[in-house]
Amino acid sequence: MTAATESVSVVSADTLLKNWQGHRRLTRKTIEAFPEDKLFDFSIGGMRTFAVLAQEFIGMTIPIVDGVTTGKWVAYGEGPKPTTRQEILDIWDRQTRELDEKFPAIPAHRFAEVDTAFGQWTMPCIDMIQYAIDNEIHHRGQGYVYLRALGIEPPHFWER
Amino acid sequence: MTAATESVSVVSADTLLKNWQGHRRLTRKTIEAFPEDKLFDFSIGGMRTFAVLAQEFIGMTIPIVDGVTTGKWVAYGEGPKPTTRQEILDIWDRQTRELDEKFPAIPAHRFAEVDTAFGQWTMPCIDMIQYAIDNEIHHRGQGYVYLRALGIEPPHFWER
Repeated sequence: MTAATESVSVVSADTLLKNWQGHRRLTRKTIEAFPEDKLFDFSIGGMRTFAVLAQEFIGMTIPIVDGVTTGKWVAYGEGPKPTTRQEILDIWDRQTRELDEKFPAIPAHRFAEVDTAFGQWTMPCIDMIQYAIDNEIHHRGQGYVYLRALGIEPPHFWER
Repeated sequence: MTAATESVSVVSADTLLKNWQGHRRLTRKTIEAFPEDKLFDFSIGGMRTFAVLAQEFIGMTIPIVDGVTTGKWVAYGEGPKPTTRQEILDIWDRQTRELDEKFPAIPAHRFAEVDTAFGQWTMPCIDMIQYAIDNEIHHRGQGYVYLRALGIEPPHFWER
């Protein structure tokens, strides 16, 4: 047996992409599970609706990958916000394809490099990507409570 | 610039431990944010209380690290369940120290090795660890909704 050291690699870029897309598939199912009106108007305790949260995920995913790849940080979503569940899902599916294309093209040295995302958040690029994933898991958990409060069974957390 | 390949390492074992402990610090603050009675009796939509969820995290953390390290899977929590917030926090803090001691001793080859956790879940050991972290993020997001519904401001998600 070899003892682990600080330098042991446990997650590769392709595994990280696979994990991210797995989480994104689960989030897509969560969006689909909401009745259309509730997606846009239901919340608890003054929190944001799940439509607004989904738009936050959309606003982070490809802009972060583009920023990590190029060093240029361009905010997403200047255009009109989606107003139907189907519009959100269409953008989602487009981003899924874009993520599969763009992520493998991230230059290897960029993951560990420190950059400032969107002029605000300074950290290694890998931490920005991890933040986007963790943020999606966190808020999707919030969406699960909305669904339960509406009497709707959320998708299984362990199925990606 | 070097193009990324499948084999690019993006997360090392020490970074994964650091991320996990960061999430665990945030979960600890979330436990602390609950009034003691609400921790044990408040929920929404028939979901579990945050005390029960915290016990689930406790039941996964060190048992998974021990299982990954040794290949022996021993369920946690045969003893009596904690009945106060302080008891939960005391177990939490004990596990924080244990995790810092035990995680670096995981043999390097074990992360990629496929094993069956607790006789039920067959996957590479790294996926078990990632599942425990993701599960904690997911359910902590649920705890944030409970806090908001109680009129309590949750800890900042980005502060670890």
